[in-house]
Amino acid sequence: MPDADDRTRRPFALEEAVALLSRTPAVLDALLRGLPETWAHAHEGGETWSPFDVLGHLVHGEQADWLPRVTIILNEGEHRTFDPFDRQAQFAASAGRTLPDLLAAFAAARGDSLRGLAALQITSADLDRAGTHPAFGRVTLRQLLATWVAHDLDHVAQVSRVLARQYTEEVGPWRAYLRVISGTQG
Amino acid sequence: MPDADDRTRRPFALEEAVALLSRTPAVLDALLRGLPETWAHAHEGGETWSPFDVLGHLVHGEQADWLPRVTIILNEGEHRTFDPFDRQAQFAASAGRTLPDLLAAFAAARGDSLRGLAALQITSADLDRAGTHPAFGRVTLRQLLATWVAHDLDHVAQVSRVLARQYTEEVGPWRAYLRVISGTQG
Repeated sequence: MPDADDRTRRPFALEEAVALLSRTPAVLDALLRGLPETWAHAHEGGETWSPFDVLGHLVHGEQADWLPRVTIILNEGEHRTFDPFDRQAQFAASAGRTLPDLLAAFAAARGDSLRGLAALQITSADLDRAGTHPAFGRVTLRQLLATWVAHDLDHVAQVSRVLARQYTEEVGPWRAYLRVISGTQG
Repeated sequence: MPDADDRTRRPFALEEAVALLSRTPAVLDALLRGLPETWAHAHEGGETWSPFDVLGHLVHGEQADWLPRVTIILNEGEHRTFDPFDRQAQFAASAGRTLPDLLAAFAAARGDSLRGLAALQITSADLDRAGTHPAFGRVTLRQLLATWVAHDLDHVAQVSRVLARQYTEEVGPWRAYLRVISGTQG
């Protein structure tokens, strides 16, 4: 447990996690809606993801990953291993869709997830209940919910980085001061 | 110049830069407004910055850095070296202020900057005009404006990362999958 003055760690609190999860669709909407399509499909080369790919991944996660796993923990506990999550599913699912489609789909799916989560009336004791992850083994509901939050923020950071790096050459010598471009996390 | 199929680089275009710059206040508002104060003051240890510190830095940049340097390039060219930017100024300037104060101050200051920028009626030819950076020497207006955009996105990525890392322990074994926590940029 972090102490109360530690600014580097927060203990998990369900109402704070929900407050963070509820923000992500609006954050990505503010960042991406109305940008030229070339920016939505920008990536970092090779198999890296564009903002469009990230949004598809987030939509798929709402449908196949987060709340379904919460439900497995509460209903079946450690006896039923989670279904593996398909990290490539969005490439087929998003084909032919537009960025505004995906922004709307993510906002709707996240809203459904948070209503579903509220309906479960999770207690503090429930947070210690566990499930079985296909790679990690035993994981708690607290860890799953904290990961849902951190996963959102990871992808917000990624989308910001992908956009920033489009100007890797255009920033000239300032590259040295821009950690998102120079690659250090500082 | 990147070719038209290159998804890793965008050539600088003023109207796209303005579209990105105009989004940042709403992105940070969506991410931060209403979060408990402890999250606004979360950091990564030592002298690292909290979301609150980043916002103060962005407000100060609008006042002291970006548009003032644009104006120096257009009015004085390379003869007048830019004033060094004080990367610690926000600690005094933000003292006693609240996060909603700083969100509002940033939105207002950014709006002023973008109106000021529009009034300058910058042409393509102007983008090649240059100024003198105190550390780097000759820099072009194009590089300055591209850096303004990338700097915003760098700090959005930073704020997301600072928040995510608050759950470094709470995510348990999932840490290995969360690049924002594990420290790789993937």
